[in-house]
Amino acid sequence: MQTPRKIAVVGSGLVGSLLAIYLRKAGHTVHIYDRSPDIRKIQFSGRSINLAMSNRGWKALDGVGVGDAVRAIAIPMKKRAIHLVDKLNFQNYGQEGESIDSISRGILNRKMIDLAEAAGAEFFFEHKIWDVTLENATLHIGETERGAWEDKKYDMVFGADGAFSRIRHRMQRQSMFDYSQEFLPIGYKELNIPANGDGSHKLDKNSFHIWPRGEYMLIALPNLDGSFTCTLFMPFEGENSFDSLKDRKSVEAFFEKNLPDTVDVIPKLAEDFFRNPTSTLVTMKCFPWTYEDKVALIGDASHAIVPFYGQGMNAGFEDISVLYEMIEKYGDDWKSIFSEYQKSRKQNADAIAELSYRNFLEMSSKTADENFLLQKKIEKSFSDKHPEKWIPLYSRVTFSDRPYTEALAIGDYQNAIMEEILKMENIKEIWDSEVVEKTILELLK
Amino acid sequence: MQTPRKIAVVGSGLVGSLLAIYLRKAGHTVHIYDRSPDIRKIQFSGRSINLAMSNRGWKALDGVGVGDAVRAIAIPMKKRAIHLVDKLNFQNYGQEGESIDSISRGILNRKMIDLAEAAGAEFFFEHKIWDVTLENATLHIGETERGAWEDKKYDMVFGADGAFSRIRHRMQRQSMFDYSQEFLPIGYKELNIPANGDGSHKLDKNSFHIWPRGEYMLIALPNLDGSFTCTLFMPFEGENSFDSLKDRKSVEAFFEKNLPDTVDVIPKLAEDFFRNPTSTLVTMKCFPWTYEDKVALIGDASHAIVPFYGQGMNAGFEDISVLYEMIEKYGDDWKSIFSEYQKSRKQNADAIAELSYRNFLEMSSKTADENFLLQKKIEKSFSDKHPEKWIPLYSRVTFSDRPYTEALAIGDYQNAIMEEILKMENIKEIWDSEVVEKTILELLK
Repeated sequence: MQTPRKIAVVGSGLVGSLLAIYLRKAGHTVHIYDRSPDIRKIQFSGRSINLAMSNRGWKALDGVGVGDAVRAIAIPMKKRAIHLVDKLNFQNYGQEGESIDSISRGILNRKMIDLAEAAGAEFFFEHKIWDVTLENATLHIGETERGAWEDKKYDMVFGADGAFSRIRHRMQRQSMFDYSQEFLPIGYKELNIPANGDGSHKLDKNSFHIWPRGEYMLIALPNLDGSFTCTLFMPFEGENSFDSLKDRKSVEAFFEKNLPDTVDVIPKLAEDFFRNPTSTLVTMKCFPWTYEDKVALIGDASHAIVPFYGQGMNAGFEDISVLYEMIEKYGDDWKSIFSEYQKSRKQNADAIAELSYRNFLEMSSKTADENFLLQKKIEKSFSDKHPEKWIPLYSRVTFSDRPYTEALAIGDYQNAIMEEILKMENIKEIWDSEVVEKTILELLK
Repeated sequence: MQTPRKIAVVGSGLVGSLLAIYLRKAGHTVHIYDRSPDIRKIQFSGRSINLAMSNRGWKALDGVGVGDAVRAIAIPMKKRAIHLVDKLNFQNYGQEGESIDSISRGILNRKMIDLAEAAGAEFFFEHKIWDVTLENATLHIGETERGAWEDKKYDMVFGADGAFSRIRHRMQRQSMFDYSQEFLPIGYKELNIPANGDGSHKLDKNSFHIWPRGEYMLIALPNLDGSFTCTLFMPFEGENSFDSLKDRKSVEAFFEKNLPDTVDVIPKLAEDFFRNPTSTLVTMKCFPWTYEDKVALIGDASHAIVPFYGQGMNAGFEDISVLYEMIEKYGDDWKSIFSEYQKSRKQNADAIAELSYRNFLEMSSKTADENFLLQKKIEKSFSDKHPEKWIPLYSRVTFSDRPYTEALAIGDYQNAIMEEILKMENIKEIWDSEVVEKTILELLK
């Protein structure tokens, strides 16, 4: 057990709430601040992408005994349902028994706050943190940025306040603080497939549905109530873009032409389209993540990534697992806890940022690339024959808790091998042959 | 002539002052704000690197008729004086007649402010700009960030307020604003070589003096008064670092051992070393640089680079040349002026940032690399024989006003050729032979 401290967590999102549970377990007083109202008492924002919980997320939840409470609101997705314009294909995610789990962000967030309160954390909603004094972990709270502020001093402050973190904003103004924010030229918009009258799902319930269309795509993830939360990813500008879909008519025509099998299942298409905001996608990196033994960033506040690997929440939860490892290792030495935590996590955050960005590139430019599709087929075929010798990158990221850096490095190594294989004569004809299999085995030596 | 506007320039540094002169020339009312006192009335900060004015800088000064006023305070440097531990080598910068010019930053800044005042710009020193409202180009000015502010509305605001720009700080908080700041692990410190008793220079006056030592280096640039401004670049941490030079004794021992020929010419070494601050080096990139026809960033505020190509000021001055080109082209259409200005400059700013960073890498890791030195010798030899076929990268950047992007691209192309050349058998023996010359000519086709 550590010496009990008075700790503030800024941000009552998924990472802030789970962190609070862990800190309570370690015996600390925990106050959670959020500028927004209690999400349990308001409607959701209409700007959510459903979450896909995978191995790293579950590990962090189970590590503090709340996994089962979350499993109760999760729907396993064992496969991708790939909606082409004229047909529907299914593709398993992993081996038998492996799945990722669909959870509504809003419902999970409510649950996590309940769990954190039950663990003894105290929440302060509608408290706006405008600044922090790093040297003495003091929060500055007030109605407006330029108005009167109240100061609250803590032993420690965690910034779990997301990609546009105020806590980081202060750290950013220190010398020697590296920082970058980079927006994608594509945005996203939430849409909805409601349940059938009897509460059942209109599409296969245990699938991650995807309509890949090159530069844009639609996905749909199942909810407990029979509905699906859909997300349309699309460039802001250009031919097929948010910019080009200005009115009801153009939206409906676009869906009829390009996403014909959604027309019957998204009844309020135009209504949702123009009511829900178009949100941006940003990759944010920074370093350092901590200030002495006083302040630490965690989750999106330290490493916001684009959502194309489904790892944003999982990576944030893994931050907490690693922080807790350091707590167990270093006891009351918070300087070492913070410094080892950031050292361990920074490289892995960079790796999953890179992998997520590459997935965006793959989806937007490579899905139509013949060589790319051929490579995927060869990898799949080889991996089926030699599962111990070729774990696909997706599985390393999703169904393992080995470091993201390792997944990235091995993925690059596998890609280099595939580059050689694709150079083989007649590879298009012989891709499934024994010759190819043997060549891969040779190259793996 | 444009319709006269009321324009605020934030920052009275080199770029802000020159910009003001150009805007006065175009007929506008110009107010320049600076949070610091008038540099003409105070001592310099002891954290300056002398400037090396080159082609792009002179072009911008001459473009508004103030080149000769600046030439009067400049000292031409025709060559590098390379101080090795045991000998001194000289190396011309370019062709006959080509030189870069040493100018004290402080003296130039005073001169530029005089010139801007003479051109009719009005200066407001010790006015702290804390924020800007982008939509209506309104500055918010006050004693402290949290205190009372006065609002000043303009037709247009230019942020020429440097790498840590407040104007950019506001733009940064918009959605879709890309931003990065990255610090080098090395810092710099100003030192001084005073004049001889008779006002003459202690080292060759018309040289850029450099003491290259791999991971650290010292440079010295001549001043009009017979002194040299020296800058020591060195890692913050490690064996040879600012961290390791904690007291008078260690500083003096370090210089005696590693920079022996400086000992006699830097009499107040330890005094300067511990009085002058250790400054940081940052590369800052962002985009967009402008907001509608209201606000524009310029100079370091939009693209701070590391100083290893001597192009920081030159690139900032070139921003002004390009802005003025656009003014001449688009007249009162400030939206087009701003949008074409940022389009033209962003790519070039990125290119000189990359080139400057590479020069840091070259200096810190490649100066001891045999292949690198051999490559430089081969390039020099070939360029001497075929000056029209091989303009060295340094000359493209320094003695030309062709775009930085072009210099970067041709530099990469030349490097690729050199890579091939270095693969030639016995290249160490035959590097100066006709075979090599012919092979380069062949590869250039």
